[in-house]
Amino acid sequence: MKNDKINFSEKFKKFMDLWNPKVIAEMNDYQFKLAKVKGEFIWHSHEDTDEVFIVLKGELTIQLREGEVHLKKGEMYVVPKGTEHKPYAKKKCHIMLVESKGAINTGSIKVGLTAPNDIWI
Amino acid sequence: MKNDKINFSEKFKKFMDLWNPKVIAEMNDYQFKLAKVKGEFIWHSHEDTDEVFIVLKGELTIQLREGEVHLKKGEMYVVPKGTEHKPYAKKKCHIMLVESKGAINTGSIKVGLTAPNDIWI
Repeated sequence: MKNDKINFSEKFKKFMDLWNPKVIAEMNDYQFKLAKVKGEFIWHSHEDTDEVFIVLKGELTIQLREGEVHLKKGEMYVVPKGTEHKPYAKKKCHIMLVESKGAINTGSIKVGLTAPNDIWI
Repeated sequence: MKNDKINFSEKFKKFMDLWNPKVIAEMNDYQFKLAKVKGEFIWHSHEDTDEVFIVLKGELTIQLREGEVHLKKGEMYVVPKGTEHKPYAKKKCHIMLVESKGAINTGSIKVGLTAPNDIWI
C-alpha cells in the first residue's frame, strides 16, 4: 500500500509535549498535523495560508482581534490567511491542524514557542 | 467574524442523500466536504489531487488495486493522486473528504453517481 492509514488516538500516544504540532499526513503540498495544547499560545498570523483547526478532544478557544471562537470536539474553524489569532485551552486539548507545508506554528514571529515544522510521527 | 465555526454533527443533520459530498469549508483552494455513504461506490481516480478520507462515524473500506484499507471512526487515509480506488461501506458511514476545489466525486468518470461538486451546507 502506498500509504498507511492513520489512527488519531494511536498517534496522540506518541508524544506528550504541548504546542508542538506533529505531521501525520501530506495531501499534495498540504500537511495534517496533530497537537496537544494547554494554556495560552501567542498572537500570530500566517501570511501565506489559511489554517484549519479541528478539535478532536477537549475544548479550544481561538481569540481573534474581532472576537473569540469556542470549539468543542467535533468542531472546526478556518483562520483566514493574514488573520491574527491566539489559541487558548483551559484544559488539555487535542487538535488537528491543516495548512500548507512549511507553515510555522508561530507564523512570522520567532520565539521560544516556535516549533520545528516538519516533525513526523 | 470572517468565518463561522463548523459543527460536524449539525451539518450532518442537514442532508440525507448518499454519496453526495457537501462542502462545509474552504482552506485556500481546497475544500472540506461531508458525505453520508452506504454500499458500493465505483472505481475511479483523481488525476490532479490527493484525496483525504476521514471517518467521523461508522466504518469505511477503501478498495485499491493493491489491497484494501479499513477505516473506523477517528481514522484517515490519503489516496494518492491518480490512484484508482473504490469506497465501500456495509452500514451507513459519515465521512469527511479533503481535496482540491473542483474535484469531482467520480473523478474522470461521469455516471449517475457523479455529484454536483460545489454544494455548500
